[in-house]
Amino acid sequence: MNLRDLLSTEEWLIDEAGFDNTRLNYHETLFTIGNGYLGTRGSLEEGTRGDLPATYIAGIFDHHDSTVVDLVNAPDWLPLSVWVDGEHLDVQRCKVLEHRRVLDLRQGLLYRLTRFEDSQGRRTRYESLRFASFDDHHICAIRARITPENHSSTIAVEAGIDGERYNLDRLPAYEGSPSFHPEIKWHKWAKSKHLDVVEATFEQDAIYLQMRTLDRDHHLAYASSLEVTTEETRRSKRLDYQEVTAQIEWQAAEGITYDVDKTVAIYTSRDVDRSRIKQVCIDALASARAQGAGSVLDAHLEAWAEKWRDCDIVIDGAPVPQQAVRYNIYQLLIAAAAHDDKVNIGANALTGERYKGHVFWDTEIYLLPFYIYTQPAAARALLLYRYHTLSGALENARMNGYQGAQYAWESADTGIEATPKWTADGTFRLWMSDEEFHITADVAYGILTYVTATDDWDFLADYGAEILVQTSRFWVSRLEDNQAENRLELRRVMGPDEFHEHVDNNAFTNRMAQWHLRKSAEALTWLKIERRSAFERLASRLSFEIEEIDLWLEMADRIYVPQDHTTGVIEQFDGYFGLEEIPIERWDENGMPAYPDGYHHFNCTDTTLIKQPDAVMLLYLLPDQFEDDVKRANYDFYEARTLHKSSLSPAIHSIMGIEVGDRTKAEQYFLRSALVDLTDNQGNTEHGAHSASAGGTWQCAVFGFGGFRVKNGQMTFKPWLPQGWRELRFQLRWRSAPLNVTIRPDSTTFRLDARPGQFEEIVVNGHTHQISSGEDVEISF
Amino acid sequence: MNLRDLLSTEEWLIDEAGFDNTRLNYHETLFTIGNGYLGTRGSLEEGTRGDLPATYIAGIFDHHDSTVVDLVNAPDWLPLSVWVDGEHLDVQRCKVLEHRRVLDLRQGLLYRLTRFEDSQGRRTRYESLRFASFDDHHICAIRARITPENHSSTIAVEAGIDGERYNLDRLPAYEGSPSFHPEIKWHKWAKSKHLDVVEATFEQDAIYLQMRTLDRDHHLAYASSLEVTTEETRRSKRLDYQEVTAQIEWQAAEGITYDVDKTVAIYTSRDVDRSRIKQVCIDALASARAQGAGSVLDAHLEAWAEKWRDCDIVIDGAPVPQQAVRYNIYQLLIAAAAHDDKVNIGANALTGERYKGHVFWDTEIYLLPFYIYTQPAAARALLLYRYHTLSGALENARMNGYQGAQYAWESADTGIEATPKWTADGTFRLWMSDEEFHITADVAYGILTYVTATDDWDFLADYGAEILVQTSRFWVSRLEDNQAENRLELRRVMGPDEFHEHVDNNAFTNRMAQWHLRKSAEALTWLKIERRSAFERLASRLSFEIEEIDLWLEMADRIYVPQDHTTGVIEQFDGYFGLEEIPIERWDENGMPAYPDGYHHFNCTDTTLIKQPDAVMLLYLLPDQFEDDVKRANYDFYEARTLHKSSLSPAIHSIMGIEVGDRTKAEQYFLRSALVDLTDNQGNTEHGAHSASAGGTWQCAVFGFGGFRVKNGQMTFKPWLPQGWRELRFQLRWRSAPLNVTIRPDSTTFRLDARPGQFEEIVVNGHTHQISSGEDVEISF
Repeated sequence: MNLRDLLSTEEWLIDEAGFDNTRLNYHETLFTIGNGYLGTRGSLEEGTRGDLPATYIAGIFDHHDSTVVDLVNAPDWLPLSVWVDGEHLDVQRCKVLEHRRVLDLRQGLLYRLTRFEDSQGRRTRYESLRFASFDDHHICAIRARITPENHSSTIAVEAGIDGERYNLDRLPAYEGSPSFHPEIKWHKWAKSKHLDVVEATFEQDAIYLQMRTLDRDHHLAYASSLEVTTEETRRSKRLDYQEVTAQIEWQAAEGITYDVDKTVAIYTSRDVDRSRIKQVCIDALASARAQGAGSVLDAHLEAWAEKWRDCDIVIDGAPVPQQAVRYNIYQLLIAAAAHDDKVNIGANALTGERYKGHVFWDTEIYLLPFYIYTQPAAARALLLYRYHTLSGALENARMNGYQGAQYAWESADTGIEATPKWTADGTFRLWMSDEEFHITADVAYGILTYVTATDDWDFLADYGAEILVQTSRFWVSRLEDNQAENRLELRRVMGPDEFHEHVDNNAFTNRMAQWHLRKSAEALTWLKIERRSAFERLASRLSFEIEEIDLWLEMADRIYVPQDHTTGVIEQFDGYFGLEEIPIERWDENGMPAYPDGYHHFNCTDTTLIKQPDAVMLLYLLPDQFEDDVKRANYDFYEARTLHKSSLSPAIHSIMGIEVGDRTKAEQYFLRSALVDLTDNQGNTEHGAHSASAGGTWQCAVFGFGGFRVKNGQMTFKPWLPQGWRELRFQLRWRSAPLNVTIRPDSTTFRLDARPGQFEEIVVNGHTHQISSGEDVEISF
Repeated sequence: MNLRDLLSTEEWLIDEAGFDNTRLNYHETLFTIGNGYLGTRGSLEEGTRGDLPATYIAGIFDHHDSTVVDLVNAPDWLPLSVWVDGEHLDVQRCKVLEHRRVLDLRQGLLYRLTRFEDSQGRRTRYESLRFASFDDHHICAIRARITPENHSSTIAVEAGIDGERYNLDRLPAYEGSPSFHPEIKWHKWAKSKHLDVVEATFEQDAIYLQMRTLDRDHHLAYASSLEVTTEETRRSKRLDYQEVTAQIEWQAAEGITYDVDKTVAIYTSRDVDRSRIKQVCIDALASARAQGAGSVLDAHLEAWAEKWRDCDIVIDGAPVPQQAVRYNIYQLLIAAAAHDDKVNIGANALTGERYKGHVFWDTEIYLLPFYIYTQPAAARALLLYRYHTLSGALENARMNGYQGAQYAWESADTGIEATPKWTADGTFRLWMSDEEFHITADVAYGILTYVTATDDWDFLADYGAEILVQTSRFWVSRLEDNQAENRLELRRVMGPDEFHEHVDNNAFTNRMAQWHLRKSAEALTWLKIERRSAFERLASRLSFEIEEIDLWLEMADRIYVPQDHTTGVIEQFDGYFGLEEIPIERWDENGMPAYPDGYHHFNCTDTTLIKQPDAVMLLYLLPDQFEDDVKRANYDFYEARTLHKSSLSPAIHSIMGIEVGDRTKAEQYFLRSALVDLTDNQGNTEHGAHSASAGGTWQCAVFGFGGFRVKNGQMTFKPWLPQGWRELRFQLRWRSAPLNVTIRPDSTTFRLDARPGQFEEIVVNGHTHQISSGEDVEISF
């Protein structure tokens, strides 16, 4: 069997043809494999100069000497090297006759073929297939296939676990700094150390390495085996300080193909008790080997197939969007740990360490919709993370002088604020953690969106209500009474548009706070009536008085929300309309705005230029609270002033453009979001994939082209397909039942797979339809 | 033979007993071996976490992506590892039963003994002897001796050349910076890359690695062999991208001792043409191996013995000063490349990269006296470096808008200014390269001191005169005419005391510039009279007119030199006497001043606190130009205000205290200087030894306790021994002949070893004596 033959059909494949050293780190991110428990960057198994290999394990954070708490660059399970008569086959030493890598999105496999010619003219063909099991998250494997093409030599294969790992703090060179050099474009790095060795041993048929993190004291256990399909002439092991390696050597004959299997089991002390971790890990490896490499792979493939049955989006007639959407869904599927409700998804998920694995509003606003509507269990786990970090949020509020719970702008393992205060070079103060208060409302928004879509009222009763009480208390203490104007204000804040700091009465923040208080009042009232005993327990535990609900409603009514009542345009914050208008006059090759001359991320503050949607974001999040003409006026006004200097920006503009009827840029903004990593259009994919943009891309397909919104608790659709798209198909899970949606240019077909007789009322283009389970309902336009 | 038995007697040994991981980098500096051509830090051969191994080769600089030009951290020839049944013997993995290292100062040998117990309870004794040949500077060698104490196992030894090297830019954490963490004391590092692979191959009986530096394109060639004194069961080699390794494996028997020899040859394209470098390097290795390890070692020991015959200082009755002085002389001996007049000695010589291998005034003022009076050929080479970098000095002057030649405050390979403009963290601007003009006079001072001591008038005619013309032209263009006062001034300068920047009329700088112009006039007048044709050639080449001499003398007379005519105290610069007096009220455990509360390196500028001698330095350098009472007044005044925040400071205070009759702190200051690295009393020896302090220590012995000065071209002595010193013996080379000096508390004996009948007139305690060659002349007090 040819390894290549295992792969899916072309439309599921992401391809790298030829080795390009300048795109090394980019491909490492792009070819990340994972299973929610861990992610492993697509580095070459044998290593190469300048590479940034990494395995990140969800929830394994550590601080020690890093600037802020880091998602730990855990021991590397990948190393697998081939030596031909003592010469290492690597892409820098050897001549690379052929090189190709393929990521199979459907099956979660990374395939590789490299043909090396060494210094003696010996040609060796190397293929490999790599995966992190989607069935048993603790198992990773590589099958390598080695063929000496024109020689018979001693071949040695070394496969190890490398614990000599560091996280990196990036140090960009800036003008005026001592490390600045006008001709040097790249950055420098400082290492942060998080790991120390606990145990490194040779076991029966395996090698074992256990390390611990220095600050959080997580233990990480790795066991690994190595086998070859030939008679070995020599087998040996190497035990170095932080690295354990197995070696197999044999006399290889020209033209013969040899298969090598490396299997790895990984456990942490978050999974099992430290006292048992070694045994559990070694047993798991033994069990995987007993099943055989083929069975392990089969179980992995079956798990992937199941995922795609729930989550796939089919775009017929548009191959680039089709591939891009699937790549983004792949990213979302390898990011979530549905089994673990104490972890969440960082800004780069498990693909890179640019944002240190930290969790932002990205989770609730960008990522959560995908999980809510395709895998509610994963969505529930993501929200439970907020419940488990509530103590951190309480502590944040206390430290900042407020009541209740304030969620961190950047959250890691404890929920304690983890945003750096300065840019890495120390030049610019970062105000997000001081001022971007809306995160707390965003968390509430995620909870209530989830409950509405799933009918999971137990979640609201058991966890959500407590979060709503504590976060509402935060707003109560944070709101400032402007007696002169008889209104409540939020001064010195930052909205989603991070170009403007220290602003007063950001419309997004004020309105979301208002919404938050009203929804909390609604939820607590429901709890008091419908879940009496749960309410009593909660009230007693939190010293909650029913009068608090009245206070929330009174305060919500008094919150000031700026708006221009003539034009309908919402003033982003007090005084925004008076700022200098700097016209956007240049666009890049993707048609995206460039900074006007002299402007950059940190000096747009006195202009109306914005980084990403802020007022428009508000219109998007609360679709049933604004009239169509207000949405249109705001979209037109702000779209002209938005620089999209965030990967979170274009998707929202694609969706809102379609909603307000300006479809001219809908596809462009969609592709900008969908291709952010595939074409590296932000230029920083090398340090991690853009998770929020992946979620935004899914929203483009479903909320944009599909026109799906939940308004007043009801599903509504207003579909529209770009030129050339013949069909768009996706599935939504609504109150446990899957609803299959097929959109064609002139009609939409719905099929609900619920209990026989069950039906849903949905609104399509303003008309209500009843969709009964098991029937295809086609609605033509 | 026991390796330990090769070592010298105890008084020549520097000992490390027991392994202390916290002092790892300190011992790497302390145990540096070298031969002027290269220096290799005392890292453990097998490597250990946190180590900073390095080999620096004199003259191999590179810029590429470093902040300023770096002395390249060259490929590492040390790696030698022992594996017992696959387990690596290293001090972190294994239990260390015994560990001792000894640096033999007399023989330039680093001896090591470590007894390891591995995870299986196997005990293995490891000894090694390491040296960089003092006879053939291109040869380095390690002999390792391995004894399995309680087991018979497969032992593998790996010995390689590691080209994966980086220089480090230190990034200190400072408060307010993003990397600052109040609990973290250590620093972070950024790597600078300088090397790329040219060729890595297996050769007949050897491995070979050739790399090149990225910016300067120096080629570095290393060949290495590995042999063991037993029947090998297996020999193999590994060729990795930037590392080549030889491995020998054998079945070792309990209690048997095995010797392993690693021999390495190193050449650079500064030594031989690139086209021949590989062959030359491999031939040199073959030749060394043909001689045999014993012969190579013998030649090395003979070369060291010869050096010590010229350079030793014997202190009878004071073992700590004796050992310390020899350690400093050892540093001076491994620092100088007498064979290479295009290189110089950096602030850390070849022991570390803190000052990037850059050359400061340290060379002429601190180091040169040792070489002038013990090894004039090495002194001549150091001064020729200034001649070869004259074009850089001309360029510096041109860039700064001056005429002639301005020597760089920090000089690397080209003489172009290489001082960083900012502290590594970007917080403080460094003004040395902008304002520390005195370096140019210091170079002239070195030249004329050399010529006076050696009678090497050819040097003056062939090289020195040209430097003097160009540097005098610099002063002519730099001096500013204060017409109101009818005097020449130097405004906005920095003297040796770097606490005060942007000062006007620094007495040291003004006076040295004056001296410089007068001495240049003298020298050029001599050249015109005594070396007519040399003068004509020079004059024609430099368009030098004889009138320039008159101009120099006129200008010298008009230079303003501040002085208080009442007290005799020289005002360090305009307005110094009006600065705030901050009393020094705390001293450290060595009796050295601590910063007064609230003060640090960068904020003493408005106070009279000084970093190191400035006016006192002037009195030291020009001993025949100031009266005794002026010296005493200045010493008393400034000593009370000097914080000694430079390793260059204490030695001068020891010497000048003795001269002016304040001997109370002479020994304390001497020990502060002599023990700077042995006791790490500056706390930064880990990043390199203090070369200038080594030279200052030698000056303490000879100029301080020996009381030696050259006044008006004549040798003068005013000896004094501290309590308990029974005898101080040293040798001075004066106009080619060695003068042996033996000082006892009550007498001094001189013996001149010149031509029979030759004599010197020397002044001892104010009285002139005639010392005839071959006779012991004892002068009692």
